[in-house]
Amino acid sequence: MKIAVIGATGTVGRAVCAELQARHEIIDIGATRGTHRVDLLDVDSIKRLFDTIGHVDAIVATAGHVHFGELVKMTPAQFRVGLDDKLMGQVNLVLTARDYLNDGGSFTLTSGIVGAEPIRLGASAAAVNGAIEGFVRGAAIELPRGLRINAVSPTVLTEAMESYGPYFRGFESASGARVALAYSRSVEGAETGRIYQVH
Amino acid sequence: MKIAVIGATGTVGRAVCAELQARHEIIDIGATRGTHRVDLLDVDSIKRLFDTIGHVDAIVATAGHVHFGELVKMTPAQFRVGLDDKLMGQVNLVLTARDYLNDGGSFTLTSGIVGAEPIRLGASAAAVNGAIEGFVRGAAIELPRGLRINAVSPTVLTEAMESYGPYFRGFESASGARVALAYSRSVEGAETGRIYQVH
Ligand SMILES: NC(=O)c1ccc[n+]([C@@H]2O[C@H](COP(=O)([O-])OP(=O)(O)OC[C@H]3O[C@@H](n4cnc5c(N)ncnc54)[C@H](OP(=O)(O)O)[C@@H]3O)[C@@H](O)[C@H]2O)c1
Ligand SMILES: NC(=O)c1ccc[n+]([C@@H]2O[C@H](COP(=O)([O-])OP(=O)(O)OC[C@H]3O[C@@H](n4cnc5c(N)ncnc54)[C@H](OP(=O)(O)O)[C@@H]3O)[C@@H](O)[C@H]2O)c1
Repeated sequence: MKIAVIGATGTVGRAVCAELQARHEIIDIGATRGTHRVDLLDVDSIKRLFDTIGHVDAIVATAGHVHFGELVKMTPAQFRVGLDDKLMGQVNLVLTARDYLNDGGSFTLTSGIVGAEPIRLGASAAAVNGAIEGFVRGAAIELPRGLRINAVSPTVLTEAMESYGPYFRGFESASGARVALAYSRSVEGAETGRIYQVH
Repeated sequence: MKIAVIGATGTVGRAVCAELQARHEIIDIGATRGTHRVDLLDVDSIKRLFDTIGHVDAIVATAGHVHFGELVKMTPAQFRVGLDDKLMGQVNLVLTARDYLNDGGSFTLTSGIVGAEPIRLGASAAAVNGAIEGFVRGAAIELPRGLRINAVSPTVLTEAMESYGPYFRGFESASGARVALAYSRSVEGAETGRIYQVH
């Protein structure tokens, strides 16, 4: 398969590429690094990317920022950061790149454990991850041509514990390699509308 | 208890008021109708409302629009309607009206069955409802002063079948009176971070 990984230069994306590249042709895409560049917040940038790389069999997204902060100090504008970035970035991708997926191809999006298991400072992240998972369930039944869509909800990655450990005390981390299996299962399996939790 | 019901003039809101008014002081609030008015999309309007009605023991929101439409024709702007309206309206309410809730008071928000059970044309609604439910789980553990927050996820109301029936073929509807019990359970119970599904 020819697989576009958007966010390939990040912690999760690198692990996904490592898992998939033994068996597939991987196109690694970042915002500022990687063989190709895209800004998921800009629909024209998504079109330009796929006009360059052409049709693919699978699109994986491991990109997206959210604001972490105390609920009692959070402003509506801060709350919107994750909606505009992590959520709408992935939604823009699905709405725009769909036509560049070969029949039976798949989207695999990224949510995160904070949607299901709350942590302090995580109210906005929980909303964003919940939205991505709702969207995946909703979009799965409407995609044409046998296209599929799933999300992976990883716990904190072992490789990210140095930065995120303090937010996730008591949570079991998972190695990037283990999290990457869920992406492989989505891309190489046949299911749609699934949320693969790695936690 | 003194309870502010925002969306009191709507199908769900009327049923909630009917259930709660026998035991409580209800303040009925709408956008264009009702004893008081508010626009949840406007934070200043929320402040003005609560400066007028004063502190309350519970706030119920049964307001919010989403765009229903075919996924393959949906634009990012259409997708955003529900984020800006149903999601951010209720988030604005929590972030702004929190200070007007008495100790131990509660928010009860409204999501909907489409977050959990997909329907055609419902991908954006599914995202919005998923976001509201994630937000409720996340916010519940951070609210101060014993404040609580829950959501009710109703199936289609029997009273709304004339308009929404075609979207929900094969779904069991629930009477407004039955749906209102879940709001009563949230307001008059002691739980927080719960999604009360009426389906
Ligand atoms: N790390 C974890 O433990 C963990 C756990 C659960 C969920 N997640 C979720 O997984 C996703 C990725 O996390 P991560 O830790 O791998 O992040 P990361 O290391 O910061 O990597 C982010 C990746 O996304 C790219 N990117 C950033 N903004 C973009 C945009 N607007 N358009 C296209 N690409 C963009 C970056 O490109 P450049 O490198 O070129 O900037 C990079 O490849 C996030 O949504 C995060 O919430 C992460
Ligand atoms: N009806 C159902 O079967 C059903 C099922 C599941 C979930 N839901 C959800 O429940 C919520 C209410 O649905 P509904 O059918 O009761 O709607 P509805 O009959 O249209 O009533 C909407 C209510 O919200 C108020 N409102 C509208 N925009 C507002 C704003 N910007 N700020 C403050 N108030 C505003 C309206 O005031 P005015 O009357 O003054 O305009 C009205 O009181 C929606 O989010 C819907 O998705 C409904």
